[in-house]
Amino acid sequence: MKKNYLGIDLGGTGIKMAIVEKNGKIVEQMSFPNSCPCAPKTIVNEIRYHLSSMKHAGTIVGAGVGVAGDVDQKNGIVRFSPNLGWKMVPLKHMLKAIIKVPIIIDNDANAAAWGAYWLDAKASVKNLICITLGTGVGGGIICDGKLYRGATGTAGEIGHIAFDAHGLQCNCGSTGCIERYLGAKFLSMQAQEAVERGKSKIISKLTNGNLEMITPKVLTQAANQGDKVALSIWHQAGERLGIILAGVINMFNPEMIILAGGVSSARELLLKPIRHTVTQRAFKAPAQACDIIISHNNQAIGVVGAALLAR
Amino acid sequence: MKKNYLGIDLGGTGIKMAIVEKNGKIVEQMSFPNSCPCAPKTIVNEIRYHLSSMKHAGTIVGAGVGVAGDVDQKNGIVRFSPNLGWKMVPLKHMLKAIIKVPIIIDNDANAAAWGAYWLDAKASVKNLICITLGTGVGGGIICDGKLYRGATGTAGEIGHIAFDAHGLQCNCGSTGCIERYLGAKFLSMQAQEAVERGKSKIISKLTNGNLEMITPKVLTQAANQGDKVALSIWHQAGERLGIILAGVINMFNPEMIILAGGVSSARELLLKPIRHTVTQRAFKAPAQACDIIISHNNQAIGVVGAALLAR
Repeated sequence: MKKNYLGIDLGGTGIKMAIVEKNGKIVEQMSFPNSCPCAPKTIVNEIRYHLSSMKHAGTIVGAGVGVAGDVDQKNGIVRFSPNLGWKMVPLKHMLKAIIKVPIIIDNDANAAAWGAYWLDAKASVKNLICITLGTGVGGGIICDGKLYRGATGTAGEIGHIAFDAHGLQCNCGSTGCIERYLGAKFLSMQAQEAVERGKSKIISKLTNGNLEMITPKVLTQAANQGDKVALSIWHQAGERLGIILAGVINMFNPEMIILAGGVSSARELLLKPIRHTVTQRAFKAPAQACDIIISHNNQAIGVVGAALLAR
Repeated sequence: MKKNYLGIDLGGTGIKMAIVEKNGKIVEQMSFPNSCPCAPKTIVNEIRYHLSSMKHAGTIVGAGVGVAGDVDQKNGIVRFSPNLGWKMVPLKHMLKAIIKVPIIIDNDANAAAWGAYWLDAKASVKNLICITLGTGVGGGIICDGKLYRGATGTAGEIGHIAFDAHGLQCNCGSTGCIERYLGAKFLSMQAQEAVERGKSKIISKLTNGNLEMITPKVLTQAANQGDKVALSIWHQAGERLGIILAGVINMFNPEMIILAGGVSSARELLLKPIRHTVTQRAFKAPAQACDIIISHNNQAIGVVGAALLAR
């Protein structure tokens, strides 16, 4: 019998489940929406319900869960998840009642990094950083071919390196974190302001004048149609991330940086100013040795990475 | 017979040599000045001369060299050392002719980190960052109990993370690197300007009015005598380093950060604002898990670390 792994990507707006071969290939997958805050019990029941309908459920020999939040991997406890509205939830213990295989719980950005390491980098490098660009900016570190968690499992929080130390207030309690200048909301807000000042007819048209509908996807469309506001927003976002990445490259000297998440769907619009800035700012040898790419498996890395963590 | 290790700390102004037991204890040591630029051949000859006068030279079974500069560890080549005025020097090959034991060449900040890991941390933690604060700001990373070198051996260049991205020009070619705001020269220059504006009688007195003589040591003396200029310089330096360390702690989540080098001799003057800033800015769990200390073995970590790299 084939031995497969169950991956669960547990986010604030939706839950993905996949049964994955040991090489990372998805055998079967499904997803269902999740409206938060939601009781852990409800979610565990939903997982049980959906798992029972999966054809290959009988083949799983291990399960991994990536949770948006601060996770105590050793004890399988979700210490704090603002997105899910959870505090000190013994998720591993709860899941054990319904999944009779070894279970590992980790942070979702760690799971995504592990997934990107296998799917995008094909495990061909030793040291890699994966950065998830979405509502927030998260990250995970692969060091010497292993997921690096650090002293408290917090490692990889690249979104909370200061870009402008005395700048904008961040949710984390500090000021000027790069997350505040790169998160989806900030980019949309920049565009809204420009549209309100009549600076972008293209964005206005793409959203039928409904400024609430401005998303990174809309900004990418607008930029690809030559919209100057959108082009400038992506350029500036790339420069800012490039400044942070230059420091990360000098400090950590990775072979690869993989960008993932909704905001990374801007692809070359973001990548070009990042690469330019890194070339200008980082030390030459580590900059040349570091491949900066955008994940080609954006939808899969979180759930596949979670599954492969259980391998 | 005892098996010991030779450590060589090869800097721009002096060279230290020590014969070290496998536990890091120094058996015998000596140092000699070095005026640069100097031919690699001359230095190798000097090392041979001084080594022949060391009583325990016969006990060494391995040798490690820490060099201020960019080092290709694999091939034992000093790719570039501005301090020594060297470019592509095959140091390992040259030393092989005079030292008949296995030799390892590494960057001096890496050697210092390895020394701090053994002497200060007693190898009791898994993940540690050592930061050398001197003319420049360097660093080394211990990851999972091993020296982490990264893709090109550059890892640990914490001095070249941006503090103020569009700020002061840095020697590395970028702008606003934290090194520019923490290096010994910058601190002295800040004090000089204040003294010239008549703001510090204490510093003026301590240097007999010779502003060229303002060093971090003088600034420490002045601050300890209550000099407001010196106190403010140390406070600001600590805050700035604290901003960078908060980001490093969020990103790397180490159990310990060890500060070393001449500028760290300010001890509590620097440490207090660093800790305060880190507490304010970093995530709570990793900040609490990270012990920030100043090395108690400042003079030894470079040469002992080099020796222990050969172990």
